Amino acid sequence: MKVDQKTYKTIWQDHEDFKKVKVIDQRKLPHQFSVVEIRSIDQANRAISEMIVRGAPLIGATAAWGVYLAAIEAADNNLGLEFILKKSEELILSRPTAINLGWAVNRMLNVLETKKKSINIVKLLEMEAKKICEEEEESSKNIGQAGLDVIKEIARKKKKETLNILTHCNAGWLATIDFGTATAPIYAARDYGIDLHIWVDETRPRNQGSSLTAWELTHENINNTIIVDNAGGYLMQNGEIDLCLVGSDRTTNSGDVCNKIGTYLKALAARDNNIPFYVALPESTFDWSIEDGLRDIPIELRDEDEIAFFSGVLGNEIVKARSFPEEFKSLNIGFDVTPSKYITGLITPRGVCEASRNGIRSLYPEKY
Amino acid sequence: MKVDQKTYKTIWQDHEDFKKVKVIDQRKLPHQFSVVEIRSIDQANRAISEMIVRGAPLIGATAAWGVYLAAIEAADNNLGLEFILKKSEELILSRPTAINLGWAVNRMLNVLETKKKSINIVKLLEMEAKKICEEEEESSKNIGQAGLDVIKEIARKKKKETLNILTHCNAGWLATIDFGTATAPIYAARDYGIDLHIWVDETRPRNQGSSLTAWELTHENINNTIIVDNAGGYLMQNGEIDLCLVGSDRTTNSGDVCNKIGTYLKALAARDNNIPFYVALPESTFDWSIEDGLRDIPIELRDEDEIAFFSGVLGNEIVKARSFPEEFKSLNIGFDVTPSKYITGLITPRGVCEASRNGIRSLYPEKY
Repeated sequence: MKVDQKTYKTIWQDHEDFKKVKVIDQRKLPHQFSVVEIRSIDQANRAISEMIVRGAPLIGATAAWGVYLAAIEAADNNLGLEFILKKSEELILSRPTAINLGWAVNRMLNVLETKKKSINIVKLLEMEAKKICEEEEESSKNIGQAGLDVIKEIARKKKKETLNILTHCNAGWLATIDFGTATAPIYAARDYGIDLHIWVDETRPRNQGSSLTAWELTHENINNTIIVDNAGGYLMQNGEIDLCLVGSDRTTNSGDVCNKIGTYLKALAARDNNIPFYVALPESTFDWSIEDGLRDIPIELRDEDEIAFFSGVLGNEIVKARSFPEEFKSLNIGFDVTPSKYITGLITPRGVCEASRNGIRSLYPEKY
Repeated sequence: MKVDQKTYKTIWQDHEDFKKVKVIDQRKLPHQFSVVEIRSIDQANRAISEMIVRGAPLIGATAAWGVYLAAIEAADNNLGLEFILKKSEELILSRPTAINLGWAVNRMLNVLETKKKSINIVKLLEMEAKKICEEEEESSKNIGQAGLDVIKEIARKKKKETLNILTHCNAGWLATIDFGTATAPIYAARDYGIDLHIWVDETRPRNQGSSLTAWELTHENINNTIIVDNAGGYLMQNGEIDLCLVGSDRTTNSGDVCNKIGTYLKALAARDNNIPFYVALPESTFDWSIEDGLRDIPIELRDEDEIAFFSGVLGNEIVKARSFPEEFKSLNIGFDVTPSKYITGLITPRGVCEASRNGIRSLYPEKY
């Protein structure tokens, strides 16, 4: 996607040095665009845990490249398979909620397991990491096409000049490899010629909405307005939102969706005001092994400093200022679960379905 | 209430100079406790519009003192009644949503109207402003006692050691003269010996929760934890909240409540999880003339800089850092309306009632 007219993806292997992977440092957006090098699985681990990269699909892709880099490190230093396995295990623990992380690492380890005798194992892992990225990209494109049908149908019914879409957090191209999940249908609808305006939830405490989603939409010339997380209910009550479109960090086999904290509140408001609430997600965010999201999805507690400190620009510097005194207590919960009954539909790479066991089974029969 | 062990109210007439009114500068909390002098109706107007003072009852009290100061200015400079009326009209426009503002100014103008021939008109206005403050204080005390019964009943049913209460924004003593509205039952329950823990919504964009509510609860030694506005739904889903308790900026005669933006979302989550949702309010926030809150309450749009800039402490300085680039658009909506059907009950100075025309009429029959 476009950054100052230039096309980027969120992660790529260096063109000159195959032992380097590059990512956009998302902690510095929207104030500064900079690229960070990852040269080891430890650096991949830190990139994920410190949220240089974030977003379920991108976390998975970064982890896949991390396993590849571990294999290089093992080969270069005669560290053996154990090194890769041990580091991969640590990598899976770098963040708990997004299912893609374990999924991607296990896919890489599967290659390692089945081809460990191959002299080309590093090359095979490189191919697998690339394949994971390509699949995510393809997946986003297909989500875009499936979601376009949803948007076209809503636009047809509304007959309004501009269609207003609310999104929470960042499920944009910055959260994936390209195109995004929740934003993929937005970009597809823009290309199709539908006039859109996006309400962007600020998304406290890390402000991924105002820092990332607004940034990427603005660079793609899509009309958008930042609101605080508190405001979506008011806008829905007042007819200012035609569609809610969010991503997912983990989806159960019955259609419960775990996404950034606050998603559930927007789903309740959408239900109360008869506004369609859709979740866009690649196959990699499904957790086929669980049914009850509220009971079975581990929810990440993050550092309280994410609430206690604000990051912003003062003069020409990016600063972190303290929002309240150190002695005040706070609690930082990363995600919540939206029960399937509040979700109008899931937008998947294979099409749109009801957020239910039967709905998902109709698209993914082989998983049940 | 207590600030570093010393007792304060939010507004008081100077003990030595009767032409001065003093207020706590709430913009600087929680980082700095300072007192600001108000010596004219224009200064009262600015104190309200710039949110040196805020909270519906305190806005009303400040406005009442403002009219008193206008009368002094008029008397000192031979400006006549027109000056007071013109300035009072401007004062009513300083903020649109809280009904108390117009209510208090009109009460003062009523004294002016009926006693304008009196040579003691300034003294009479001074007495009326004091009376408004005393009534608000008395009102808060009575809300506390009425709300204590609600809390006792919930504590009895829950049989848990600690009762968890969620509150949004600041409807504490800082929003009133003393005791608060939503916090009055909390202080009463603490004095009664009930073990409480308060979840404090940060309350973007001005962070009245983390800046004011957490500050006043901490100074009163009440156990509290700041959460982002997104988190309340998760906590309710997980049994971590036993009661929601908020204030009101305007209440219709059918029980719709207009309060800080985001209140509606919490009411929806409380309903979805069978958690009691109570609104505590003095009589002065009732707008007896309207029934449909969604249709008839004017909602304040505030400066977008409140979203675009964060205020915090850096080193020893209070700074305002920019959260996102100037070219990003945002919209700052001050309040939302919670329909009466989502409100378990209203806690008023005259007791607790259903949030309905019949419920309110049972306590305020003379108003219908």
